[in-house]
Amino acid sequence: MTESSRPSNSAPIGVFDSGIGGLTVVSELRRALPQERILYLGDTARVPYGGKSAETVTRYSRENSDLLLTEGAKMIVVACNTASALALPSIAHHYPVPMIGVLEPGAAAAVKATQSGKIGVIGTRATIASQAYTKAIHRLNPELSVNAIACPLLVPLIEEGLLDDEITEAVLRRYLAPMLGEGIDTIVLGCTHYPLLKGVIAGICGPGVSLVDSAENCALAVKQLLGSDPSTELTPKLDILLTDSSEGFLRIAEKSLHLTIDSLSVRRAGT
Amino acid sequence: MTESSRPSNSAPIGVFDSGIGGLTVVSELRRALPQERILYLGDTARVPYGGKSAETVTRYSRENSDLLLTEGAKMIVVACNTASALALPSIAHHYPVPMIGVLEPGAAAAVKATQSGKIGVIGTRATIASQAYTKAIHRLNPELSVNAIACPLLVPLIEEGLLDDEITEAVLRRYLAPMLGEGIDTIVLGCTHYPLLKGVIAGICGPGVSLVDSAENCALAVKQLLGSDPSTELTPKLDILLTDSSEGFLRIAEKSLHLTIDSLSVRRAGT
Repeated sequence: MTESSRPSNSAPIGVFDSGIGGLTVVSELRRALPQERILYLGDTARVPYGGKSAETVTRYSRENSDLLLTEGAKMIVVACNTASALALPSIAHHYPVPMIGVLEPGAAAAVKATQSGKIGVIGTRATIASQAYTKAIHRLNPELSVNAIACPLLVPLIEEGLLDDEITEAVLRRYLAPMLGEGIDTIVLGCTHYPLLKGVIAGICGPGVSLVDSAENCALAVKQLLGSDPSTELTPKLDILLTDSSEGFLRIAEKSLHLTIDSLSVRRAGT
Repeated sequence: MTESSRPSNSAPIGVFDSGIGGLTVVSELRRALPQERILYLGDTARVPYGGKSAETVTRYSRENSDLLLTEGAKMIVVACNTASALALPSIAHHYPVPMIGVLEPGAAAAVKATQSGKIGVIGTRATIASQAYTKAIHRLNPELSVNAIACPLLVPLIEEGLLDDEITEAVLRRYLAPMLGEGIDTIVLGCTHYPLLKGVIAGICGPGVSLVDSAENCALAVKQLLGSDPSTELTPKLDILLTDSSEGFLRIAEKSLHLTIDSLSVRRAGT
């Protein structure tokens, strides 16, 4: 990309996720960078990514990134832990704009937060199988102990809106019991849906455990990356593209996250 | 299609589903038609279909059917209630081989089974929203009362292998309580995953409620359609194509359904 074709400051920050969960990242971006335009792409036609292979998640991530670039994004935020773990390292160098995921910022925050040296990570089956969090934490401090557990039922429970429900609590207790028994003092919420369960998780873990919200840490990393070159847009907008027209969970997320959506349209990513 | 290019008797029955759940139909086909070759396509790269729009499910169903035809299928079984409800009516006439879904056979069996005249239907969000079961039942007998409820958490619970688990039971009790309170005596298991929960559902409903297994009734309809022209294959095979290489749930289904899989490969459906 030549200097002349570089997107201007007022171009949108492009954000993609397998579905709607990445709006937790948008919510944090809004707070950290209130003047930025945001273009969010939710690949709802192929959601979820969490049980799929690295090859398939990489293909989808490239198609999503291509679409955001076509729409003029000045940077791409991979607001999906599965795509950050499985696809981002191999595709980032293909693109002429900065790409940032949720994984490295979350790992760095966890390393900073732990005092016992024992960190728990929860995520989708694909994220946990990739060991991406464990490797990212160990790159920062190889002495730390990491207990990573796949929690594949949490996304469906959240998408059903069971955010404060005894069934969700029972499922969480079962997932978390082993790591709590091992003395972890920090848990990385390694899926962008999970901040919607922060309250329930904090209730189960008690005050001795810090919850690291990958959405929040990703937004801070984006702010740092934009540095002294932020947008000066006076009417920052949130435009949403979905790849399928079903939008049930969008309303749950919009309400829980207090987001104002300026436009919503359906667009096909890839082929 | 000319007579000379018509697939021979020994050509496979093509079966597709959004994922692995349709293997419950394969299991019943094996029992009803032990000498048939079966080619199963699970669209695991885009699973699940149950929360997606009619337009997207129709596109996927066409791509799956095209692939099965390319592989020489002599008929196509849509072993997915969501695709049977949303896509089959509009695509069946495009294809030169017979197509059969799980919905009409299940509706017919329910109409036959009920004595109280009150039928319950459980299925995915998309299947229930389409009202396809209610309409199919009312085409056969408009006097019957139909209580249809979306149970979107059941597929993820089944895919996690929680077939006999207190969490699954708690979720089922919550979904079924309203219809049981209204005096239904028949429940259609309107998703090909659900036969894997038949035991738990029967335990909750008690002996006064008949469970209509759409997989079983679909297999009987296929047998009737093939009529006096069955395969005489001596070594019937089950070949499986998946669109993504993740296959965790395949092993759960294989074990629960006592299936022998002769070959497994990954193939991209559509574009």
